[in-house]
Amino acid sequence: MRGRQSELTSHGGPGELALLDRIRRLATRNRGRAVSLGIGDDCALVRLKPGEDLAVTTDLSIAGRHFHLKWHPPEAIGHRTLARGLSDIAAMGARPLAAFLSLGLPRELTIAHGRHPAWVDALCDGFLALAAKHRTPLAGGDLAQSPIAVADIVLVGAVPRGKALLRSGARPGDLLYVTGALGGAAAGLKKLAKTAGRASGKFNPAAQAILAPHLWPQPRIAQGLWLRKHIAATAAIDISDGLSTDLDHLCGESGVSAELDADLLPIHPGATLELALHGGEDYELLFTAAPGIDMPRRIAGVRVTRIGRITKPRSGPRMILLARSRRQPLGRCGWEHFS
Amino acid sequence: MRGRQSELTSHGGPGELALLDRIRRLATRNRGRAVSLGIGDDCALVRLKPGEDLAVTTDLSIAGRHFHLKWHPPEAIGHRTLARGLSDIAAMGARPLAAFLSLGLPRELTIAHGRHPAWVDALCDGFLALAAKHRTPLAGGDLAQSPIAVADIVLVGAVPRGKALLRSGARPGDLLYVTGALGGAAAGLKKLAKTAGRASGKFNPAAQAILAPHLWPQPRIAQGLWLRKHIAATAAIDISDGLSTDLDHLCGESGVSAELDADLLPIHPGATLELALHGGEDYELLFTAAPGIDMPRRIAGVRVTRIGRITKPRSGPRMILLARSRRQPLGRCGWEHFS
Repeated sequence: MRGRQSELTSHGGPGELALLDRIRRLATRNRGRAVSLGIGDDCALVRLKPGEDLAVTTDLSIAGRHFHLKWHPPEAIGHRTLARGLSDIAAMGARPLAAFLSLGLPRELTIAHGRHPAWVDALCDGFLALAAKHRTPLAGGDLAQSPIAVADIVLVGAVPRGKALLRSGARPGDLLYVTGALGGAAAGLKKLAKTAGRASGKFNPAAQAILAPHLWPQPRIAQGLWLRKHIAATAAIDISDGLSTDLDHLCGESGVSAELDADLLPIHPGATLELALHGGEDYELLFTAAPGIDMPRRIAGVRVTRIGRITKPRSGPRMILLARSRRQPLGRCGWEHFS
Repeated sequence: MRGRQSELTSHGGPGELALLDRIRRLATRNRGRAVSLGIGDDCALVRLKPGEDLAVTTDLSIAGRHFHLKWHPPEAIGHRTLARGLSDIAAMGARPLAAFLSLGLPRELTIAHGRHPAWVDALCDGFLALAAKHRTPLAGGDLAQSPIAVADIVLVGAVPRGKALLRSGARPGDLLYVTGALGGAAAGLKKLAKTAGRASGKFNPAAQAILAPHLWPQPRIAQGLWLRKHIAATAAIDISDGLSTDLDHLCGESGVSAELDADLLPIHPGATLELALHGGEDYELLFTAAPGIDMPRRIAGVRVTRIGRITKPRSGPRMILLARSRRQPLGRCGWEHFS
């Protein structure tokens, strides 16, 4: 592999170097055609096709805030870290080309204990399993010792020039759609918090089903690509902060208002309307389409549901919730930092 | 700016949103032609020219490890964070297209105190000043609350297909060169550690001169571009971990050995041979060139010095130091993590 890979870092002591070697081996197996130079040089080199633009996103996850070492199996932390990045790529209608992972870790998380592999090895397993599913090679990153665990994910993707799905394209009269079901991730997190400290493998199948949307969210890459290729959506965003917050983002960038119909919301089994509206981390796609578009009921196997419509920008509340024939203002109540 | 910019993040409470608005304003002023969509959407969109490959690098900086809140002025932390990324781009002979910054910060660092702007504002000032110098727009990133300060920098750059300077291209007989002077950053760090707690503004001019290579390293973008355009270098790496460690990386990726001549090393005023060999963070370029190349003594205003040569791979120590007519093995003694 000499000379055929981007720095995943060079600041290596013995423990880190062993970890790097393992990541190199795992990452190089499935490098993909877009990555012409992966882990091992100062930069990775990535190739686009003619006429493509590059889509880049980065998401920072911090222990105690985005995940809990005592709650989350490391495989799920790896999976969720990558899912956050892939979901942003999906929301642009882009195809993922390569992932880059910066990890800051306390030393004890990098050490194997007897026959138990190191915590970080399990994180990499979860990360690389989802990466393989979406044919997204790990092409670089960085590793550093840190008093708390942090993971920054970078995804680069490709999209035909001028064809990306933007947040800013929604127009009054457009219909509002969502993929999959909402609130499941928040319901899973509540369940996880109640049973904190138990290893995930010890949950019974019913509990596993409740936890799954939170622990193993599925980025909607295929659905984003379908919407972009069929010129079916006018705007799109992924639901990371919660429907109310992400719809507010979409409305803000498009300069429009919106009405949500509570009775139409696809609420995940075990979730509530409240969690579906504000829960966050579902990583479903929220998108708009012109009313004349014949939207399929499923895209690439995932349900698509009409949940409201876009209206002209109005003074007063930007979002309205229609529930039991009543109209009420809807505020953004998703996850907020520094508040 | 509606709909014209990548997520720098959406998880915004009031403090974070004000900070985001400021970063958006500052970043948008100087977006550059390559970034067709910057902060504000799920991804940034970046455009390459036909026949170009993308170069991507990411570097994680952590408080207490890569910088100290009590030692480093926030402007210098911002500068150094970006310099780390730009230096990797320089080492590939690439031109920078866009930067992405993920910041995890304790809340108090985001709050202004009376007429004193918030710590993070000063960090952004230092970051954006260097970004402007290298015409590298801040095109996205992420912000999160964190118990410790962390900064992950992502740089994307462009390089003509197949023309990137790699670590792997050095051949026996090549001569070994370095830009600028070595050891200055480590000497500056020693000075800083001795005078910890004093604001940088209070240092006298002599002290400032000693601190400068550490606080304000200059990534060698112009030199990397020159070497690539003139097909003058066979291999290159930036000196982030120390000459001995980074030369070892270069030799490893190229499958060669090397001899360094101690008497030729351009030691920074105030530094020692030891610091020049192992100090790290100089962010100079270490590169190799065929012996027939007529290497200029300066490239884009920066001195270039021949410091040794590449030899066939040998058993035993990979690197030899020639000092006062004696040959001694040279080990990699740069900065190591997890050791």
